[in-house]
Amino acid sequence: MRDRIAINGSRLIADLRTLAEFGRTANGIDRTAFSPADGEARRWLREAFAAAGLDAGIDAIGNVYGRCPQRRAILIASHSDTVATGGWLDGALGVCYALEIARSFRIDPDGPIGVDAIAFQDEEGAFLPCLGSTSFCGEPLDTSALRSRTGETFGAASARARFGDAAFRLNRNRHVAFIEPHIEQGPLLELEGRRLGIVDGIVGVRRFSVQSTGRADHAGTTPMAVRADAALPLFRLALWLHRSIGRIGSERSVCNVGAFAVRPGAVNVVPAAAELTLEFRDVDRAVLTRIEAALDAELGRLRRTSRATLTATCTAALDPAPMHAGLSAMLRQACNALGHPPLDLPSGAFHDALVMCRHVPTAMLFIPSRGGRSHTSEEDTAEDDIVLGCEALAEAVSRLINSGGLPE
Amino acid sequence: MRDRIAINGSRLIADLRTLAEFGRTANGIDRTAFSPADGEARRWLREAFAAAGLDAGIDAIGNVYGRCPQRRAILIASHSDTVATGGWLDGALGVCYALEIARSFRIDPDGPIGVDAIAFQDEEGAFLPCLGSTSFCGEPLDTSALRSRTGETFGAASARARFGDAAFRLNRNRHVAFIEPHIEQGPLLELEGRRLGIVDGIVGVRRFSVQSTGRADHAGTTPMAVRADAALPLFRLALWLHRSIGRIGSERSVCNVGAFAVRPGAVNVVPAAAELTLEFRDVDRAVLTRIEAALDAELGRLRRTSRATLTATCTAALDPAPMHAGLSAMLRQACNALGHPPLDLPSGAFHDALVMCRHVPTAMLFIPSRGGRSHTSEEDTAEDDIVLGCEALAEAVSRLINSGGLPE
Repeated sequence: MRDRIAINGSRLIADLRTLAEFGRTANGIDRTAFSPADGEARRWLREAFAAAGLDAGIDAIGNVYGRCPQRRAILIASHSDTVATGGWLDGALGVCYALEIARSFRIDPDGPIGVDAIAFQDEEGAFLPCLGSTSFCGEPLDTSALRSRTGETFGAASARARFGDAAFRLNRNRHVAFIEPHIEQGPLLELEGRRLGIVDGIVGVRRFSVQSTGRADHAGTTPMAVRADAALPLFRLALWLHRSIGRIGSERSVCNVGAFAVRPGAVNVVPAAAELTLEFRDVDRAVLTRIEAALDAELGRLRRTSRATLTATCTAALDPAPMHAGLSAMLRQACNALGHPPLDLPSGAFHDALVMCRHVPTAMLFIPSRGGRSHTSEEDTAEDDIVLGCEALAEAVSRLINSGGLPE
Repeated sequence: MRDRIAINGSRLIADLRTLAEFGRTANGIDRTAFSPADGEARRWLREAFAAAGLDAGIDAIGNVYGRCPQRRAILIASHSDTVATGGWLDGALGVCYALEIARSFRIDPDGPIGVDAIAFQDEEGAFLPCLGSTSFCGEPLDTSALRSRTGETFGAASARARFGDAAFRLNRNRHVAFIEPHIEQGPLLELEGRRLGIVDGIVGVRRFSVQSTGRADHAGTTPMAVRADAALPLFRLALWLHRSIGRIGSERSVCNVGAFAVRPGAVNVVPAAAELTLEFRDVDRAVLTRIEAALDAELGRLRRTSRATLTATCTAALDPAPMHAGLSAMLRQACNALGHPPLDLPSGAFHDALVMCRHVPTAMLFIPSRGGRSHTSEEDTAEDDIVLGCEALAEAVSRLINSGGLPE
């Protein structure tokens, strides 16, 4: 009979509850990257990694790295920073899974493969989304231009935080695989009645800011036919996107018109200017390209039929990232072995896995989010589901190590 | 041969240019009611009315009244206050027409009918739209609750301005008719190639504020079908109004969606709340009622098909005001006699005439607005058209007085 990692569920929950005290506010948890609470949490995690038998440290950018004594390692990681009104799970879940699995590791301590744990820095983008994993992977990164929303430079924040001097890096000779466990942040597992999910890909996104310039006229005295109403073509565009996404995209495509502003904004003045931001996401790059082409055609139609002037700027274009099939299959087998067949689903949100998968075989394990809520104090998951997710991950890691590494 | 009032066009233009210096700013003219510039302009007008032979004064609310020596009078008036970024004509035009016609009055100085002039206070609604004419007509008016946008109480503004103690009032035994000359503030005269317009009615308006409450969800992880997007039904409503106004309303109906806001307003968050303001106007009350019923039905449809909660509040309901047919006919004859057949058109904007017409036979004479622009520093009218308008009004007043008053 093969060796297994047996995790301690109540110890895992206790760690999550402890971590949730760092940055607690009336509106949730605020561990914005480089904030005092973020620094305190990272120092606590360093001690916890060390107590679990890992060689632990914090590098210059704030990544907390716990290195196992083995020559090679399966890397388990997520991020410990939060948005300003975050919940208690989100990235903290994956970090505590990594801690618990490293701490419970009893398989052949003198063998070739162990478990490394990381709490990445600034996944939420106080300065740059996925800052920590980008740094860890050695991707091009110019921190000199980075500023927070409050205008603080990265240099100032970094000096204030005083994390360390090292720069921890991915090592393909050491890191055989990367697994990021996370709450789903959506309702699919709950809707389907499943307790575990395997991510088949992280969706890509296209974001546009669309500006419309018209002419302010008196809304009582100016006949409809001679107006240059800046808002009207954007109302049409917003509705077109919502009506077309299901037809032009796939059944998994999603879109959003999250911001809409009108100037001067008076009830009796025809809008002189209007602006909206839109985005659409899909796991298939070809689908994104198709929607983008249709958007471009619709903008052309609107330009021909409106007196307002429309300009569209692409503000973000991230391609979908497929997860590693072999690693995902091993995760799926582990879930099945525990009697909980997982749901295959895309990740509609971004994660450090989006950066990591460009450099190392990567997979993601999801557990349910109550009501699909995240990034809010209402973010929650049943403790049983939290423990089950860690058990499934421990089972997958046990299988990986017992089989000598990753199946090709 | 009958007597005529012969106005002096260059003197009229000089008065308008002088008045335009009160409150001049980089962004137009700011004679917001009760501002220092408004007070200075009113004191200048009082002197000008007095120099024209009128018994002139300023009452407690700021109305500048010039009373002719005759027992009865045709009242010519508009307002001298402006919006914060006003143009040089707007209400000032009618006030200067009144001044010029009273000053040029040479018809039977000992006769029974003369010309009274008024510069009404706060037509633009710094405290209350048509405040001055409402006060002049003795309509119910509770100034104790009035506040400016900056929060100043009416009492404080009034004490600061120190206008006077009197309360000038309309007197039906004295005031046989009221005529308000004004720039069109719209493009119809220009589009039709006419230099004079007679207003057949002031449009009524219905204004609504519509609130939508949904649920903030992650725009990447939440499938379209389970969202409660607060903005979506308001995009539909805005577009429905624009598409329906011509079909449900009349060819003269106009509508506007002038304000639209979305919260939290992030590109990747499904709108949790959204709000718009809309209005529609028509000269026919039955048309307004018809559009309002259709709006109500559309809101019902949207409520049934959306997961967001919609509430609509009527924020303004003003009924259309027809002008006096006999008085308007006399204005029309005067225009024709000058060789400039006028255009009959509605007033899409509100005026002191809207209040006055409830108490005294009322008519309005329009002259063109270049490009239909008003309430901006670009507001302008050719000097020839300004002089022609005053000549047409003088001709109408001459005819009224020679015929002994108003035809029934």
